[in-house]
This record gives sequence, C-alpha cells and structure tokens, in this order.
Amino acid sequence: MTFMQKLDRIWQKNNSLVCVGLDPDLHKLPACLTGKPDAIFQFNKGIIDATHDLVCCYKPQAAYYAAFSADDQLKMTIDYIRATYPEVPVILDVKRGDIGSTAEMYAREAFERYNADALTVNPYMGTDNLKPFLDHADRGVIILCRTSNPSSCELQELVSNGKTIYEHVAVLARDKWNYNRNAALVIGATFPEELSKIRAICPDMPFLVPGVGAQGGDVRKVVECGSTKAGTGLMINSSRGIIYADKTEKFAEGARKATLELRDLINQFR
Amino acid sequence: MTFMQKLDRIWQKNNSLVCVGLDPDLHKLPACLTGKPDAIFQFNKGIIDATHDLVCCYKPQAAYYAAFSADDQLKMTIDYIRATYPEVPVILDVKRGDIGSTAEMYAREAFERYNADALTVNPYMGTDNLKPFLDHADRGVIILCRTSNPSSCELQELVSNGKTIYEHVAVLARDKWNYNRNAALVIGATFPEELSKIRAICPDMPFLVPGVGAQGGDVRKVVECGSTKAGTGLMINSSRGIIYADKTEKFAEGARKATLELRDLINQFR
Repeated sequence: MTFMQKLDRIWQKNNSLVCVGLDPDLHKLPACLTGKPDAIFQFNKGIIDATHDLVCCYKPQAAYYAAFSADDQLKMTIDYIRATYPEVPVILDVKRGDIGSTAEMYAREAFERYNADALTVNPYMGTDNLKPFLDHADRGVIILCRTSNPSSCELQELVSNGKTIYEHVAVLARDKWNYNRNAALVIGATFPEELSKIRAICPDMPFLVPGVGAQGGDVRKVVECGSTKAGTGLMINSSRGIIYADKTEKFAEGARKATLELRDLINQFR
Repeated sequence: MTFMQKLDRIWQKNNSLVCVGLDPDLHKLPACLTGKPDAIFQFNKGIIDATHDLVCCYKPQAAYYAAFSADDQLKMTIDYIRATYPEVPVILDVKRGDIGSTAEMYAREAFERYNADALTVNPYMGTDNLKPFLDHADRGVIILCRTSNPSSCELQELVSNGKTIYEHVAVLARDKWNYNRNAALVIGATFPEELSKIRAICPDMPFLVPGVGAQGGDVRKVVECGSTKAGTGLMINSSRGIIYADKTEKFAEGARKATLELRDLINQFR
C-alpha cells in the first residue's frame, strides 16, 4: 500500500489527525530506563504500544538518534511499527536537500535502510534534489513550505512576482512535484493564516503541521484553516507535549492520555 | 585552533584550494577492497594518505555513509584525519536545516559525535536553525547560497526587493550570521558570474565551491570570479573526479595525480 493510501485509511480508522513525534532525548528519558542499552527503543515502544490506535502517523526526528549514535534504535523503532502496527505510516523527519546523485543515496537510506513510508525534504535546491525521492511512487515526500520557527520569515516571506517564497514552493509542489501524487507539505501551526493561503493553492494535498504544543500553535485555527473539504488532509504533530506528558515510569500512560486529548480537541473543530 | 585558522594555515602550507570530497559509493570501490568490512574506511584512508599534502580540506558527504549503514566508517575516517593530519580541516557535508531544538541535536552529532571542524547547513528556515551551529565559534558553518545543480534556479533565482534569494542569503550571512566570524557559503562552480556577485557582497568570506569535474564547472572562471584579494577564499571541491580517477588497486595513486593536477590548474589562475 502506498503512503497516501495508508494515510487515507488511518485517518478514517483511528478518526485521528494526530502525528506523534518520536524525538527521544536520551537525557530526558524516565529514570526507569536509565542505563539500558536500548533505552531509546524501549521508550518509543512504550509510547507506540500506548498510542497506535489514536494516531494517523509517527514521525521520528532523525537528529535525536544521530546525536546519540542511536541509528540502530531508529531502525528498531521503524521496524517495530512496520511489523506490529503496519497500518500506521512512519515519516522519517530528515529534511534532506542535496544534488541528485547525493539525493539518490538519501533515498536509499530513508526507503531501504530505514524503510520509512515517507520522509521530509528541503526545497531550496529545487526539482533535481526532490526527484530521487518523488520517483518512489509508493513513498511520501513531505516538502518544507512554511516552517513553524520564528525566523522562518527571513527567506520564506520574501515576495517575488507577487507571491511569497513559501507560496512559490506550494505552487511548485502542486504543478511540478506531484507527478506521482505522493507530495505533501510542511506548514507550521504557528502561522494559521498562511495555512489557509496554502490550502487554497493545494486543496487536496496532505499537510504535516508541526508547532502545536511546545511551540504554541492554536489547534482550532489549524483545523479551521488547514483541513480539506473532507475534514482530513492534516497530520498535526506533537512531540514534547506527548512523549514527555508524564516523566515517570508511567510515561506510556501519560502519552496515551495526551494523545487522546489532542485527538479529541482536534476532532471538536473538524 | 578554529576552523578558520586551520583553513588560513593550510591554504598557505599546502598552497592549495582543493577540497577532496570523500563520497565513497560502496558499489564503485576498487575490486581489491570488495568484501572487506571496513572497505569504505580503507578506501578513504588510501586517498587521504595520498593527498593530505595537496588539499585544503576534506569533505565527507554523509549520504554515502548513511545509505550503506556505514556511520562507524564515517567516524573512523574523520578520527583518522584528526589524528594523522590534524592540520587538515574536515567538513561534514550534511546540509542540516531544522528548528532550534533539533539543530542543537545536529550540532551535537557534527561536533561531538563526529568531531568535524565544520558542517554544511541549509538556510531555508533562517537564523534560529543556524544559531546552534554558529554558536560554536571554533567550528565552521557553511551555508548553502547558490547551489551547483541545474534546478537550483527555481527558488534561488527568484527576485525580491531587487535581489535574488541567493543574494539575500549572502547578505544575511554577512550581516547577521557571521557574529563569530565562522560563517562560509556554498556557491556552485557552475554559476561563475554569480560567484562574482557574491564575492562583492562578502569580500573575505570563504566559499565552498562544488561543481568542477563531473558537474562541469570551469576552474579558470571559478578562480577569477571567486577568489579573495589575497588569492585564497576558496575550497574548490572535487569528489568523483579524484576518488574514481583510477578504478583499480592503484586508486590512491590515481587520486594523488588527479588532486595534483587540479591544484596546479587552480594555481595557474591565482
């Protein structure tokens, strides 16, 4: 099944637009896991087992694994989801951007080594960076458009030919990069008006929306401005708000409670 | 010693502006290395031992290691250069770009896990992505500005307020991102006129210039348009043209010959 098919099904099955960000900081794990050689994987497994029926996807952020030489536990995490909850797509958050021959190597990493359903990419280098990923029609390619961080305005809000740079990215994604119907966009929850503008450009394209929770985005506005006519189209990510909801040995229960609350809050506005 | 100090010294000591790109494709290594568990490291070591007196830096491209689960051999390669030829700076080519808390993790990866002297980063997300790297005053932060690939024009050539996006990046690098004097720019050899424009904006900043060799950039134009008044300021990268110059067991000798030729060709125009 392709990433887009999995996403369509899980939105319905779990009645959820929540993406759980698996960003485990080794120094912030609960004390009960301290010292275990696979502490990161055990932490993720606890959260996954407790939330798989409440989410539309998982998104491990590669930086947290790379920083702690835990590449193997990233692979174990994705393998575990694929084997145990194959209905839940996994997005590898790596924000790749490089020339074509290098992008081929990154595609091999994301889709063969880690077997992720989708990855995130950076559009700054243009089509020939994106093509090696987009050519994998069964995988999703989620392109940075309008990011959630404060200084994203420096380049993304510059206006050229009457359109901001992030609108140019949205138009390119719609007209040039979606030839396999597997493109999606990253749009920060912290800019809901811009979410509306981009939804108007790409009426049906899925959006990955980071920035609710720790970064302060407003859930109501995100749903009102970002969802499709079908009431879906969004993967609303929360990382810290869910994985550190409870910092004790009851972290998995805490994560379930926080995921349920976010799912229900989102569904209130759909 | 900081990255910038190392670079200044090695430009003089080796009289070279050549950056050797260590991008070892496991499927293209010489037959004599086939099947060895540390084939990638052995290949790199051969090239490093044969070229260390002819280069101004090495640049391992992380994608080639990530694709083949060879993270350990990337680390062995950087450790080997640091221990054996400590005068030669190492640039980890990873093109990172993410929100601040994630960028902190990537800084830990590049500067602690791998102990690289410098890394490459993507400017699309702006200052708060770059700051966790720039705050390491002893390390270099090499920011994508005008990349060498054909479709780089799609976003980078858009004009806003009379300046292209890549010129905006150059101005931001000069005025906002160089507070520790450790910023540098990536500018493709395939666009020499633009190299001139950016040199005018940033008269002293080092430029990493990929795109000579396999990508077709013209060495004479690169040197004429890109070097500083001091006749340095450039790290001119060649990867495939050097590491695959000879595909037999004499690959290291081949790499030395190709590096020497490129160094001398560059020096003709300085």
